[in-house]
Amino acid sequence: MTKSIGIFGAKGFIGRHLVRRLASVGRPVIAFGRSFPVHYADIIGYPVEIREIDFNDVIGTQAKIQDVSTVVQLINSSSPSLGNLHVSSDFRSNVAPHVDFIESCIASGVEAFLFISSGGTVYGNPYYLPIDEGHPTCPINSYGLTKLIIEHYIRLLTQQGGMSYVNLRVSNPYGPGQSVNKGQGLIASILQKRAEGEPVIIYGDGSIQRDYLYIDDVVDAVIAAIDTRGLKATLNIGSGIGRSVLDVISALETVLGEKIATSFVEGRSTDARSNILNASRAKEILGWTPKWDFIEGLRQTAG
Amino acid sequence: MTKSIGIFGAKGFIGRHLVRRLASVGRPVIAFGRSFPVHYADIIGYPVEIREIDFNDVIGTQAKIQDVSTVVQLINSSSPSLGNLHVSSDFRSNVAPHVDFIESCIASGVEAFLFISSGGTVYGNPYYLPIDEGHPTCPINSYGLTKLIIEHYIRLLTQQGGMSYVNLRVSNPYGPGQSVNKGQGLIASILQKRAEGEPVIIYGDGSIQRDYLYIDDVVDAVIAAIDTRGLKATLNIGSGIGRSVLDVISALETVLGEKIATSFVEGRSTDARSNILNASRAKEILGWTPKWDFIEGLRQTAG
Repeated sequence: MTKSIGIFGAKGFIGRHLVRRLASVGRPVIAFGRSFPVHYADIIGYPVEIREIDFNDVIGTQAKIQDVSTVVQLINSSSPSLGNLHVSSDFRSNVAPHVDFIESCIASGVEAFLFISSGGTVYGNPYYLPIDEGHPTCPINSYGLTKLIIEHYIRLLTQQGGMSYVNLRVSNPYGPGQSVNKGQGLIASILQKRAEGEPVIIYGDGSIQRDYLYIDDVVDAVIAAIDTRGLKATLNIGSGIGRSVLDVISALETVLGEKIATSFVEGRSTDARSNILNASRAKEILGWTPKWDFIEGLRQTAG
Repeated sequence: MTKSIGIFGAKGFIGRHLVRRLASVGRPVIAFGRSFPVHYADIIGYPVEIREIDFNDVIGTQAKIQDVSTVVQLINSSSPSLGNLHVSSDFRSNVAPHVDFIESCIASGVEAFLFISSGGTVYGNPYYLPIDEGHPTCPINSYGLTKLIIEHYIRLLTQQGGMSYVNLRVSNPYGPGQSVNKGQGLIASILQKRAEGEPVIIYGDGSIQRDYLYIDDVVDAVIAAIDTRGLKATLNIGSGIGRSVLDVISALETVLGEKIATSFVEGRSTDARSNILNASRAKEILGWTPKWDFIEGLRQTAG
């Protein structure tokens, strides 16, 4: 039986890019998700095995992962932009099924569990910058808290041995094909507003800084984690560079060669003031560093 | 309608001491718990209103807290000594009902929510000593993780205003009447082993340090938190003094005037190496400091 890499949440932004990269080099990848469009393989550009799962169906999911040796977990039904409107339903719909899923993976003999966490939200407001993995974790939105709790359960449930894991605390990814449905992705949402001829809504004064990482760099980090066996680690995956909302708009104006219309509204208490990640541990452990220049990444994204 | 102080988990060690103290000075206290012995009031020594609740029954519990303005939450179905045998069932039986309970308290207009957390387990292995509240929280046992998650939900669910809260990260409490049923309390278990004529089991070499706090000091801290309105704070409640297992045995030998028999077994990976709390924030915010001398506390406990 071939041991496969299962990508859970393969229909999403990071999932599609990851499946495409793995399929392009002939690695045994299986795309897992709640449902797939019929033209999914066309979107990916390569033949790919698809398995539809109901993440809340513990028995059914477990039956479908028997030939999976590496799990990359991207499934998430929440979003940072939802703020704290759904704190308890986020808890029930994200955290509880994850605890079951981690146990199912251990029971099925999965060797490595790679969890895509959120370096942008698990820390909350920073005490110092750039943020390393020893920084206190005090999320100020529900999204970040569910990610943090899942990380803790992965760590505790694997404490007695067996399955290895990496919690990848990815900063703010951007790139071609990012959906704006969940309100994630400043760059995607700026491009969408421009396409619609609407001004970009800026919360607060536009000084909030984030650490933007091009999707190919994110995929490189996940693949490095797939290929480094036996880890039990929590790693920041970020560029190490902070860019304000106004910086991003200015850079996009350079790339597009035109002015972007903006509209300022009140800031949100569930946005951390700043987020810049120190990813030196990922360099040391995975040999990973980001390669993409920001302007070049924006050019690819603006297409 | 008199606004009452509801003690949830009033039958336990801290709960009984707290109810007794409040009742002794005529404060409007209600004892909540799953079940009570018929002679509960005799154990307390004062007349006290009792309300039996099923913590998993959200509607029923909410109906019984309409006249409660301050909640002290001590209910816990787990214990640090269980280690990680029950990680996922701990999650389901402790965390999920707590999220419901916090929401019920907010919906019922509870003004202040005081949560008895665990300063001895939420931090995990220390990076530095004594541990302050800014120290990373990386629990290595299921008990500590459930406490930490509940703290986070109290903080997030009250972020938009309304109910105030204090998460009291209490160190290792000891004193008269501590039960050894859940394996909690080194001092209680030493006294029990002595009464049974059995040697005290020591995990590892006996060098593991803990921060022991006499029950009257714990009760003082909770009452200071009840009486300080409008807080949103997480506070260490500890002595600031580290004592090894061998230190505690030696101190008890002094108090008892006799040798205590011991038996050494292998250490447990779910015990943090050391735990000593810096409680200076509690001093600043609550005006609380521990008053009891350790030897005097042991004398009271050994009775």
